[in-house]
Order: sequence, then C-alpha cells, then structure tokens
Amino acid sequence: MSHIEKTVASKEVFSGHILKLRVDTVELPNGNPSTREVVEHPGGVAVLALDNDQAVLFVRQYRYPYRQEILELPAGKLNYGEDPAACGLRELEEETGYTAGSYQFLARVYPSPGYADEVLHLYLARALQYRAQKLDPDEFLTVERIPLERALSLCLDGTITDAKTLVALLKYNELCRRGEI
Amino acid sequence: MSHIEKTVASKEVFSGHILKLRVDTVELPNGNPSTREVVEHPGGVAVLALDNDQAVLFVRQYRYPYRQEILELPAGKLNYGEDPAACGLRELEEETGYTAGSYQFLARVYPSPGYADEVLHLYLARALQYRAQKLDPDEFLTVERIPLERALSLCLDGTITDAKTLVALLKYNELCRRGEI
Repeated sequence: MSHIEKTVASKEVFSGHILKLRVDTVELPNGNPSTREVVEHPGGVAVLALDNDQAVLFVRQYRYPYRQEILELPAGKLNYGEDPAACGLRELEEETGYTAGSYQFLARVYPSPGYADEVLHLYLARALQYRAQKLDPDEFLTVERIPLERALSLCLDGTITDAKTLVALLKYNELCRRGEI
Repeated sequence: MSHIEKTVASKEVFSGHILKLRVDTVELPNGNPSTREVVEHPGGVAVLALDNDQAVLFVRQYRYPYRQEILELPAGKLNYGEDPAACGLRELEEETGYTAGSYQFLARVYPSPGYADEVLHLYLARALQYRAQKLDPDEFLTVERIPLERALSLCLDGTITDAKTLVALLKYNELCRRGEI
C-alpha cells in the first residue's frame, strides 16, 4: 500500500547561502490537509580516507549549531549539479591536502528524512598522496590522523556523534569483516 | 586550538510546527564576519526493537522531502523538555504497538551538524510485548518485521538509507561482535 502525499500548494519562506525552506500544503492519503516544512539542501559528500598505515583522516571543526568542535570525516556541500564523486575528491584535497589513487562509493544516506531533502554521498579513498591543503581563508579546521581501530572505538564509546562519520566507519568495518570490500 | 565563532546578531526568519530557522551573524576566529543559517529542531528518538526471534521492527512510511516511502526504525520527535528515553518508549508503542521489558541507551547522533542543532537519541528495546498500535488518524505507516541478519544486509546493500537506522543497526551489530552489549 502506498501512502503518497499530494502537493496542493508550495511557498518558499527562505532562500539562503546553504539552504532554502519551503512550507507545502499536502493532501494526506485519507484526504485530510496537512503542512510539510521542507529544508532544501544541495546535498553533501564525505570521504573515509585511509592511509597506508590503516589510519583515518579526520577534521576537527567548530560546528556553530552545537557550539562545539566535533570530529568528522572530511566533507563538503555539493554545488547544484556537481558530480558527488568529484566533489568528494575536491573536498578531501582542500581540507586535508591529500589526493586518492583509489576511490570508491560507500553509501548514500538520508540524514533527516522528516524535514530535509539532503542526500549525503559517502566514499572510500585509499592510496593517498599528500599535495597541499587548500583551506579557504574563512575555514578553520584541524586535521587529525587516527588509527582505524581507534576510530571505531570512538564510534562505539560515543565520542564520534556525526551521522555520516558513524555510517561510513561502521559500514566500512562490516564490509571488511565480510570480505566485501 | 579552539575555533569558536562568536554570535554578533541573531534573527529568527521562520517558526513552524516542526522547526525554526534563524540566521546569525558571527565573528570568525580571524575576526571576519560571516553568517550561519541554523535550523532549530527539538531532536528525536529512534528505537531498535528486537523481538525474541532476533527480528527488528521497522516502519515503512512516506517521506515527503524525498517523495518516496523508506524503511526506518520506529522514531519520533521530542517535545521540548521531554525525556528522550520516555519518548522512545512512547513512539515505539504508538507506531508498532509494542512495549519493552528491557531498554537501554545505544547512541547520540548529530544528523546534519553543518546547519541543524538536532540531536537524535537511539535506544535498544528487547523483551517486547504487544499491546495495541495507537497511530494518529493522520499518520500512515506500515510495520515490517525483518530478521536482524537480513536488516544488516539491507544496510550494506544500500536499501536502507536513513541515517539513524544505519547507525543503530551497525553499532548494535559491532557491539554484539565485541560482546559489549
């Protein structure tokens, strides 16, 4: 049984640099009207970059909505129409200085399906080579290199809270155990 | 080194049923001004409910931002000030009809740290007992019971895309392997 919600009306209430917000009037499967608040976001890409010593490259950065610095995989926002795979390589090099000789798709994640249309694309990068970090003058982050086993422990003990980072590390770990990657 | 962004000004641009949106002017660590678009959300709770046959209770529901039905763990939005543990038990019973004799904390997740302050609280529920589903008249979802091993396969093959569901299942699986839960 399908439970489609038909759009009756749509109103954009905000259009910013990062996101747009619209409020739609919908018709529910029972015919009742309801409203849906929808955050429109171009989507993002995160990269699990593993070096030859099986260490993972992290970035520690201040996340304003939580008013704290958190540990995340290198990641960035897609430009509309941009290829996610290329975006991941670009963000990895800009934030950490590394390029990848081996690169593959890992997962597609919906972070907040209740109210946002954002899709996160996760990739695995290996055979890393250092070139040069290219941070924007207004971008502040610290690169940290953490052994894979230690990074997994940080997922399990609650230190890592970022959804994309948890999914990438835990999924990669399980695929490795199964010999599927 | 800490990279705190100081709030210089804050303007609420939207206040709805599910979320609020504000645009803040901040001072970056280098003294430059910038803006931050912040979605305020009360947070949510999701429950990995495992029955005595090691099957997981899922809900399949239409997610308007993606215009598709997706498979997720039972979950709900926190009321401001509500205890997350109690919210999880309530949502589990409302959506699936089950109460839990055993209940424990599993993870705390930031779904979109770039622009949202939402925190997701994940719990593990066992020793389930069926009472009665209590769906809101305007809530449409189908409960599906999926064996744990099959559910894990759905995380690995890309069928499951929901972040909270991926984190809960993959983390629970790894904790089991390590004998830590």
